Formats: sequence, structure tokens, C-alpha cells
Amino acid sequence: MSSEFRIVHYLDVKREPVTEQNSRNAWVRWLISWEHGAPNFAMRMFEVEPNGNTPLHSHNWEHEIFILEGEGFIVCSGRSHRIKEGYAILIPPNIEHSIINDGDKTLRFLCLIPKIK
Amino acid sequence: MSSEFRIVHYLDVKREPVTEQNSRNAWVRWLISWEHGAPNFAMRMFEVEPNGNTPLHSHNWEHEIFILEGEGFIVCSGRSHRIKEGYAILIPPNIEHSIINDGDKTLRFLCLIPKIK
Repeated sequence: MSSEFRIVHYLDVKREPVTEQNSRNAWVRWLISWEHGAPNFAMRMFEVEPNGNTPLHSHNWEHEIFILEGEGFIVCSGRSHRIKEGYAILIPPNIEHSIINDGDKTLRFLCLIPKIK
Repeated sequence: MSSEFRIVHYLDVKREPVTEQNSRNAWVRWLISWEHGAPNFAMRMFEVEPNGNTPLHSHNWEHEIFILEGEGFIVCSGRSHRIKEGYAILIPPNIEHSIINDGDKTLRFLCLIPKIK
């Protein structure tokens, strides 16, 4: 698909459950993706509710993450790091990782991935 | 450079002036870049102060933008669109664009670009 200008508010993008095994109370909105002609990488917004988490997993592509709201921690290669609004995170390929919300409100973050060619 | 785990708060990343011609009161922080081993794309944060703007320009790579704070408008191919917190924007390659802050507080946004290979 050819690349076209797109402007959208995140609330106008459908929120879908993260269905991977061992995810819990986690949701995703595909804000900018291949469907919109993104040439190289996609922007998703994740929402992890209190007591929720993304699955502990790894894959051969990176994540670039920006925390928008809420609090929790990220586990990466078995180490834990506190996260809150304003943190940027690079998770390299093939590193096991998970994001956990241990706070009392929604943990909202952007997570961008490259196009798998 | 090999890709390594990175976690940083944006306030701990140096804010540098945008020096391109016709930019005004605009600043950039390179949160995740090639220097940190990003394999495919970089995450920058821009801060445009009231009455500031990024230059009207085009280039042969895309932008993926997320508005974090503040208000203003984006001009893209001669058309103007209001922007505020929560908007995601895909600017395709080779499209003339500029972002203008006509509000009364800092306009803060993420702008991601692909690695030029």
C-alpha cells in the first residue's frame, strides 16, 4: 500500500485485547501501521490495567517504548526497572521482556516495531 | 554499534536547538538513536515553544509523530490540521510539512524517523 498522510486521535482507534499467552488485562491500539502505508515501522499504543501485564517473551526485532501515563515496571533479561511517565526504553532484539502494572491506574505507553521484511 | 538495553527519562537527555533554517523556538532531544544501537528507527522528542515552529521542509523519509502536550497545528501539503495531546500522525516521504505552536504553552511531541541506509 502506498504511504498517505494520516492524522488520528488515539481514542478513535479501536482497542483490542492482547491475546498472546500469559498476557493479562492488556490492550493494544494500532495507531500507525502497514495498513496505513507506514514504510518502515509501526506505532502501537498499549494499555495495561492494574494487575495486568504483557507476556514475558522475546522475538528477533526491537521495541522502542515511551511511557505516557501510569506506573509499573519492566523486566528485561531478568532485571527489573521502575517505569513512569516520560521514560523512553530500547529493548534490543532477542531479549526476554515483560511490562507489569503494579499501580492503581492504567499504564499507557507507545511501543514501536520495525516492519518485518 | 550493537544494540543494548536503554532506559532513560526524557528530562535526562540533553535538549538541543533545532538549527535548520526557518525553525524558531524549537528544541530536540534524541531519546533513542543510532548512538544507542537502535537497529531501524530513532525516537526524538521535540519541544516547540509558543510562537515557535519547525521549518517547512520535505525529505525522502517518513515521520511518525505522537503529540504529548500542548496545542498547535500541522501544515502538510498546504493543508492545516489542529493538533493536541493524543494525536498520532504519519507524514509520508516527500511531503512538505511544518508544525506550529499557536498556543500559550510548550508543544511537546515524539517524532520518529527511519535509519537512512
